[in-house]
Amino acid sequence: MKVVVLAGGVGGARLAHGFYQALEPENLTVIVNTGDDFDHIGLRICPDLDTVTYTLAGIANRETGWGIAADTFEVLAALERVGGPSWFRLGDRDLATHLQRTALLSSGLRLTEVTSRICAALGVKARVLPMTDDTVATKVLTTEGELDFQDYFVRRRCEPVVQSIRFAGIEAALPSPEVSEAISEADGIVIAPSNPFVSIEPILALPGVRELVQSRPAVAVSPIVGGRAIKGPAAKMLLELGLEVSAAGVAKRYAGVIGGFILDQQDGSLAREVAGEGLEAVVTQTIMRSDGERESLAVSCLELLGRVAPTRGGVSH
Amino acid sequence: MKVVVLAGGVGGARLAHGFYQALEPENLTVIVNTGDDFDHIGLRICPDLDTVTYTLAGIANRETGWGIAADTFEVLAALERVGGPSWFRLGDRDLATHLQRTALLSSGLRLTEVTSRICAALGVKARVLPMTDDTVATKVLTTEGELDFQDYFVRRRCEPVVQSIRFAGIEAALPSPEVSEAISEADGIVIAPSNPFVSIEPILALPGVRELVQSRPAVAVSPIVGGRAIKGPAAKMLLELGLEVSAAGVAKRYAGVIGGFILDQQDGSLAREVAGEGLEAVVTQTIMRSDGERESLAVSCLELLGRVAPTRGGVSH
Repeated sequence: MKVVVLAGGVGGARLAHGFYQALEPENLTVIVNTGDDFDHIGLRICPDLDTVTYTLAGIANRETGWGIAADTFEVLAALERVGGPSWFRLGDRDLATHLQRTALLSSGLRLTEVTSRICAALGVKARVLPMTDDTVATKVLTTEGELDFQDYFVRRRCEPVVQSIRFAGIEAALPSPEVSEAISEADGIVIAPSNPFVSIEPILALPGVRELVQSRPAVAVSPIVGGRAIKGPAAKMLLELGLEVSAAGVAKRYAGVIGGFILDQQDGSLAREVAGEGLEAVVTQTIMRSDGERESLAVSCLELLGRVAPTRGGVSH
Repeated sequence: MKVVVLAGGVGGARLAHGFYQALEPENLTVIVNTGDDFDHIGLRICPDLDTVTYTLAGIANRETGWGIAADTFEVLAALERVGGPSWFRLGDRDLATHLQRTALLSSGLRLTEVTSRICAALGVKARVLPMTDDTVATKVLTTEGELDFQDYFVRRRCEPVVQSIRFAGIEAALPSPEVSEAISEADGIVIAPSNPFVSIEPILALPGVRELVQSRPAVAVSPIVGGRAIKGPAAKMLLELGLEVSAAGVAKRYAGVIGGFILDQQDGSLAREVAGEGLEAVVTQTIMRSDGERESLAVSCLELLGRVAPTRGGVSH
């Protein structure tokens, strides 16, 4: 069974790692949000791509979910001493990835090719694809004005109140040929428990991608458990955008794209509401602390995929 | 007394540090070769500027002469793991300088301004000036073809036989206004014991610089001691270029630009030959192991400067 996982950062990476254990690597493609990508002291930084790559390579920092385990910060300390910025916590080993990526991009390779080379060097056998080779930049309109995503996320720690989100460059961007082909050929699409607004919707907003996903069996895993996000500002964003702060609120956001939805066992009472959206609802343990829990959740997704039809195929349950 | 030191890497940095101890910092300007500068994995690297800056800042690696003391190599190791190059030994703290420099250059600052900021951040109070804000690249024609300087120097360890040296871009390059002004206002110019061919001659080859130096009292310190270079390929180059491999050979190379020349005590027998070139010859201890030896040599230069006239003033000794 060929599976495509749509992923943002930490939650997406963990579920992708579950599939990496559950499937043969050639059957797994992870399509990763690049709306968070940015330039910093001359380096092209792709936070979500790196989190997915490091997690699949088994070198991610398991405490934080991002960055490399046991990384050091010698460059960052020295950079501050020579007058450089220190607000973005660049580990030394992580920095090496950014240097190599930036150099390969400058040499004319597409981000898709660069990512493939870095994955190969780190021993990642599944396919990790940036959602696009074009530049798309997530902008967060807040009560304090519009902020670049990393400004909002890292420097301002998600404190400003969100009014809307836009993806600058999305109209002119195209999914890469690899992305379109992977979705078209997939037996199932899984939307990982990532932030719907800033991780998944940039992928779905690329011209043609939403329609391609609708043509395949697709399921999503709730990033909201017990009314709170496992990680990041998803719950705060739901609230500030006037949406229902719950797994059901996320399910409604994805209705029309997916046929099935997985809720955490803490949210069993919401299954009926999710089913009311025309979705196949499954309640299970979704919090992924161990490798085993990651794999179990992937298996639950695979089972659910077997029971749903494409949303644009006229098949209903 | 306002002194300008023309310097390459390690030897130049050590003598500059002698002057930094012997003079008030506002009276010292070090003009540094940038012909060795190159781009590596997207970073602008200026080896001689950094060696001078780190030495004056008191953070240089005293063993090697270049790099930062007790630097670590986490990024380099990780860069190799992601498929990047490892032939150029980039320390983590050193790398921070390259990142900051590259970012500031990209923001539109001149290399002179960037160097000034880095020096200020590291507490260097003397003026350190790149010889030019334009791009000049030293190329070494060898029996194995023309090599970029770092290729010749680092990757090939100076092994190929040198036939000639050229400075690509030198005709279109200009000394910075700061360089021209510092030389014009100097009470004396000191050519440091750096490699004549690849450290000092790029500076003198900039349009107008040789003439400006000739208009001031100027002395040089021999980089060749006992027929050998203290560091680097100067002796090997003299040999391969068919020149006399001795302090006297260097003195002849500089005749017409300097009025005085300092030889090491090991080369006392060559003083007469140097004097025969019309130069005021001084024999002293020139090997700079300690801070005190650096300062002593600077004082010897200051004394000699007081006894020489500009070469283009019609005054002879």
